[in-house]
Amino acid sequence: MLAAFSDAATLRHALAFEAELARAEAAEGLISTEAAEAIAALCASIEIDPAELAEEAALAGTLAIPLVTRLRAALSGEAAKALHKGVTSQDVADTILACQIRAASGVLGNDLNRVTTALATLARRHAATPAIGRTLLQDALPIGFGLRIAHWQAGIAESAIRLRHEIEAGAVLQFGGAAGSRAGLGGKAAAVSARLASALCLPDAAPWHTRRGGIAGIAAALAIAIGALGKMARDVSLLAQNGIAEAREPAIPGRGGSSAMAHKRNPTGCQVALSASLRAPGLAAGILAGLPAEQERGLGGWQAEGPALADLFLLAAGAAEAMAAVAEGLEIDETAIARNLAAAGLGDDIGESAALVAALIARDD
Amino acid sequence: MLAAFSDAATLRHALAFEAELARAEAAEGLISTEAAEAIAALCASIEIDPAELAEEAALAGTLAIPLVTRLRAALSGEAAKALHKGVTSQDVADTILACQIRAASGVLGNDLNRVTTALATLARRHAATPAIGRTLLQDALPIGFGLRIAHWQAGIAESAIRLRHEIEAGAVLQFGGAAGSRAGLGGKAAAVSARLASALCLPDAAPWHTRRGGIAGIAAALAIAIGALGKMARDVSLLAQNGIAEAREPAIPGRGGSSAMAHKRNPTGCQVALSASLRAPGLAAGILAGLPAEQERGLGGWQAEGPALADLFLLAAGAAEAMAAVAEGLEIDETAIARNLAAAGLGDDIGESAALVAALIARDD
Amino acid sequence: MLAAFSDAATLRHALAFEAELARAEAAEGLISTEAAEAIAALCASIEIDPAELAEEAALAGTLAIPLVTRLRAALSGEAAKALHKGVTSQDVADTILACQIRAASGVLGNDLNRVTTALATLARRHAATPAIGRTLLQDALPIGFGLRIAHWQAGIAESAIRLRHEIEAGAVLQFGGAAGSRAGLGGKAAAVSARLASALCLPDAAPWHTRRGGIAGIAAALAIAIGALGKMARDVSLLAQNGIAEAREPAIPGRGGSSAMAHKRNPTGCQVALSASLRAPGLAAGILAGLPAEQERGLGGWQAEGPALADLFLLAAGAAEAMAAVAEGLEIDETAIARNLAAAGLGDDIGESAALVAALIARDD
Amino acid sequence: MLAAFSDAATLRHALAFEAELARAEAAEGLISTEAAEAIAALCASIEIDPAELAEEAALAGTLAIPLVTRLRAALSGEAAKALHKGVTSQDVADTILACQIRAASGVLGNDLNRVTTALATLARRHAATPAIGRTLLQDALPIGFGLRIAHWQAGIAESAIRLRHEIEAGAVLQFGGAAGSRAGLGGKAAAVSARLASALCLPDAAPWHTRRGGIAGIAAALAIAIGALGKMARDVSLLAQNGIAEAREPAIPGRGGSSAMAHKRNPTGCQVALSASLRAPGLAAGILAGLPAEQERGLGGWQAEGPALADLFLLAAGAAEAMAAVAEGLEIDETAIARNLAAAGLGDDIGESAALVAALIARDD
Repeated sequence: MLAAFSDAATLRHALAFEAELARAEAAEGLISTEAAEAIAALCASIEIDPAELAEEAALAGTLAIPLVTRLRAALSGEAAKALHKGVTSQDVADTILACQIRAASGVLGNDLNRVTTALATLARRHAATPAIGRTLLQDALPIGFGLRIAHWQAGIAESAIRLRHEIEAGAVLQFGGAAGSRAGLGGKAAAVSARLASALCLPDAAPWHTRRGGIAGIAAALAIAIGALGKMARDVSLLAQNGIAEAREPAIPGRGGSSAMAHKRNPTGCQVALSASLRAPGLAAGILAGLPAEQERGLGGWQAEGPALADLFLLAAGAAEAMAAVAEGLEIDETAIARNLAAAGLGDDIGESAALVAALIARDD
Repeated sequence: MLAAFSDAATLRHALAFEAELARAEAAEGLISTEAAEAIAALCASIEIDPAELAEEAALAGTLAIPLVTRLRAALSGEAAKALHKGVTSQDVADTILACQIRAASGVLGNDLNRVTTALATLARRHAATPAIGRTLLQDALPIGFGLRIAHWQAGIAESAIRLRHEIEAGAVLQFGGAAGSRAGLGGKAAAVSARLASALCLPDAAPWHTRRGGIAGIAAALAIAIGALGKMARDVSLLAQNGIAEAREPAIPGRGGSSAMAHKRNPTGCQVALSASLRAPGLAAGILAGLPAEQERGLGGWQAEGPALADLFLLAAGAAEAMAAVAEGLEIDETAIARNLAAAGLGDDIGESAALVAALIARDD
Repeated sequence: MLAAFSDAATLRHALAFEAELARAEAAEGLISTEAAEAIAALCASIEIDPAELAEEAALAGTLAIPLVTRLRAALSGEAAKALHKGVTSQDVADTILACQIRAASGVLGNDLNRVTTALATLARRHAATPAIGRTLLQDALPIGFGLRIAHWQAGIAESAIRLRHEIEAGAVLQFGGAAGSRAGLGGKAAAVSARLASALCLPDAAPWHTRRGGIAGIAAALAIAIGALGKMARDVSLLAQNGIAEAREPAIPGRGGSSAMAHKRNPTGCQVALSASLRAPGLAAGILAGLPAEQERGLGGWQAEGPALADLFLLAAGAAEAMAAVAEGLEIDETAIARNLAAAGLGDDIGESAALVAALIARDD
Repeated sequence: MLAAFSDAATLRHALAFEAELARAEAAEGLISTEAAEAIAALCASIEIDPAELAEEAALAGTLAIPLVTRLRAALSGEAAKALHKGVTSQDVADTILACQIRAASGVLGNDLNRVTTALATLARRHAATPAIGRTLLQDALPIGFGLRIAHWQAGIAESAIRLRHEIEAGAVLQFGGAAGSRAGLGGKAAAVSARLASALCLPDAAPWHTRRGGIAGIAAALAIAIGALGKMARDVSLLAQNGIAEAREPAIPGRGGSSAMAHKRNPTGCQVALSASLRAPGLAAGILAGLPAEQERGLGGWQAEGPALADLFLLAAGAAEAMAAVAEGLEIDETAIARNLAAAGLGDDIGESAALVAALIARDD
């Protein structure tokens, strides 16, 4: 996940953008094929230190300026002039972001799948195991132990679906030019846009320089997914308490020890997910706050999104990976479950828990 | 919108819940028809001071406790026992919230429609009017003046669609009983749930006491809609500046005056939407923060959602109504537009603005 | 606390502002004494429906406009002209807010004192009672049971001090006139400001129309106080769990029952404080987000502060009152404490707990 | 600033903690002087790859575990046993954070000073230059041009003072041991704490493992400082608009260009500060949300603070540095100021602007 948002990945996507832009414009007759091939060849071969470029970009306020300067310096004549034709720095930046979101989404999706698959198995296995249900942190009535797990599963699965939809709709090509009017392309802009989108494996779209609801939707969906993982982590950590002890994280070498107390097994996976779910709402709020962007391309708002989105993906991936390990190795103590149920003295009628487990899990299959 | 979340509406929905629950349980043979009719009759006729009940609910921590106490005191024998059978206070509270969300959504949807309809007309009318486009608050390149408006329109329309989807998925019946296991209903819980949902005009659903992603999705969608309205407000207020003066809010009696300066016409509609878009992200974040709820029904999280959601709807409705008035009466000064374009000295090539306007607006029709 | 931010209180502060402004300006010879007395007499006697005025203010975008219109209509000649001289609507609004903050602070301070006083007693009483300490939700090492309580006390006491400092510095007179230049007062503005501040029992200050760090500081301090109350609530609710049972909220008539389960005593006071601590961070963030206000008086930012600050005070007061009742009646079960300590099998060395309790509590005396 | 929060700095502070802890414990007779010197010598000479250690710490959930493991492996006999005596991983982590906050504060303070010094000069120079004041984005009444600048200066200076106070109070030694009871130190813990604090140049303090108001106060103060810088950035960017053109950022090589439009000078410094002020409120909210920490040492809350605080410092430093460059080179166009004032047609009475400038600036001297 770190790789998806690294300076190196950023540079790679930027070079792909400039190369495929040139090819698309050549295909529409806007620049010569020779110029396009020279640009594409340069983009494939140029060696640029990603960290150095990132530093110049921070000064310039945008990556495209120092990048285009370097590329142009290495080109000559028509190719130098043809480079970056009809686009603006935000076209590059937003398209990079869209590519990174899709790459990150693949990594995250795998870990979310691991979690939901493992939880579905656990939920089915314990669907009818009578356990005390707890509400407002007090013993309430019996439930099937697997019902709680089925809710974790369903919550995470639902959040994964929302995220997929938001990414499908929002992580799209940005291609608008300096003021979003697609000027200077001789009426061929729509065709170039379609070609460029196809080459970059992104959906084609009208420019969205200051229409950022799609990005905000992705950010919110990430925060909700993190919260769903946090819900599971909250419950696992409560179940693992001494005096409850119905379930605990698996022992993983190097994880969950204590520097002072050898007897402890800390719920460190849960800690990772709970930390993430404390940070995510504010990160999403920061992106929502930027929606009232100025005019054709805003000042400060969209520039704040990249780092916040990267943080959200990193937190989501960290939480998903941690919870995948917890789900796959969760140690469930049926004796403790039975003991706590008996201590509650509220019988063992688990109502329609098993049917609910089946209904909740089925939706994901 | 205030009415949708008033104490009176809350009480009305709560009484409908208890009445329809009794009817549904009678239809499934869980209680007698006489008991159900006695309960339904009482719910239709009882006079309760909504403010007094709200105060007791604040003390009790939930509305259902003082309400059920009052209803039960007015019933006798079997009906008293049949009341509120198999449900818990959160079932009532969440179902009320779902009903309020749907009522509020209708009100909000109308105002959002007013905005998008008016903006679509304006965007088409000015699609090809050359105007200076501005990026990073600086003159950039010419655009069609209507392109900016089309983006306002598209952003708001997209956010309305997301909101509709989230409400459809998330504002659903809550019916789980004390610990979410649907116990004590003799295997008829699913049937009761289906009947109750139908009677209350809500989608049926598995219990979601601590699976709050749907509510969080609605909150986020509201914040995004508010942000889309804020984007329009930002631009209108910037256009209305002296020295730019390309557009301004209509004069509305009682609005936008200054207590100290008779010459001013303040962009008060924009102020309403911008205020809303400052507040909304934090309100949404508060709901996201509650996702890691405890066990079968949580402590503190879901109880924090109601007021925050009500605030979000009130802010959205206030912003939508204000922007509807602005959109319907926006005063556009073509002379100023032409003057500023000429001053920029960047020509009048608006590129493919008109085609983009058509594409952006068409999506909403 | 509701009274402090009610429409009626708002109106009362606004009328006091206009009356004392007239007197201060008369004392400096800017208007006649007769005009000032006519204005003051009117402000003392006029009957205005606060709700009706609030509605007009919502339309106008500010309270001062409909209020001044009404007052002026009831005055004549020089007095009508002398009214509201040299000030702007935001001067009125911000001064009202400062008065409300100070009134609210008194109410809140009392409840915070109740909490810290009760906790200090409990902490001392149980300073040396051996109990198992818990870290990362796992048994760790023994502590004095009172040490946990002393930390609650110290956290709340520290937050009360921060809040007092922020209010002292930030809830001050606003007196700047239409553009903050204090024009039209013949060089007497500073003297009028000093007189007005004194009459309204507020610190005098340079105008702060778009310098809102003081308000943001108050908001953040409220959120921190709420978080400190939430910390206590978190721990009490964890201690009250079945299987732990070391302490629980007192039984309060009408509070904490369950509509479905007669056996439960829910930690409803904790619920109030935990709900508040979920909502507070976002409310504070909304105020922080408005800091980059525009020019001499901003559009949208300061107008968003009032409702958010009122919410923060209401949440803080609700949480403080709930936690005061919990602290004053906390039921501590020494048998359970000893049983859990023994079960941990980690001995009973509480280290320097007692000394730490003394040190933590002493700071507040 | 990056250096202050780097893995290398983290490691350096951690090694200093372990070395000075051993010395302090030796001085109090808890371990032998030989053991202490062996530990200190090892901490001064051991070579550890900071990135590798960070990776292990991420898995373990805390830095101290892999670090202590390595150190202990390089020690023998008594020294191995004496290492890390009486402390817990959070003692190390929080003390590192306190040290990093103080280092970062120095860097940030310098840049804030640059801003306020440059602004004070500008404010005095233009204190009496008549300019149009603007409210709600509309021409209002004349002000001295320097009055606006004086408010920028005062807002930033005030926020720097709050930040200093919060850091002084909140960035302190953490020394509590596994459960915060300071056990296992034979009654010498207070003395060891005092020695350790002194050696690390931090204020001594009672343990604060789950009393995080101090950290939250620092986070809020950072967000307020960023907002004060954002206020200046907002105004400079509005002043730089074509059609207003009263001031603009200095031309800085490599900054503010456009990849598509050679004629533009973008307000890139303002963009940096405005981006930061969009992100900061949510980052602060994330820290506020963690206040209700669990029991003696919490699960997830304090672990979320470090990255968020580092981000806040990085954003603050980036904004301060950008605004320092803007303040030191701000290009003010007196002709444009006079032209806009004349166009407003509202005279040139700047009221008591000059006196207010003097009063605002004087407070900082």
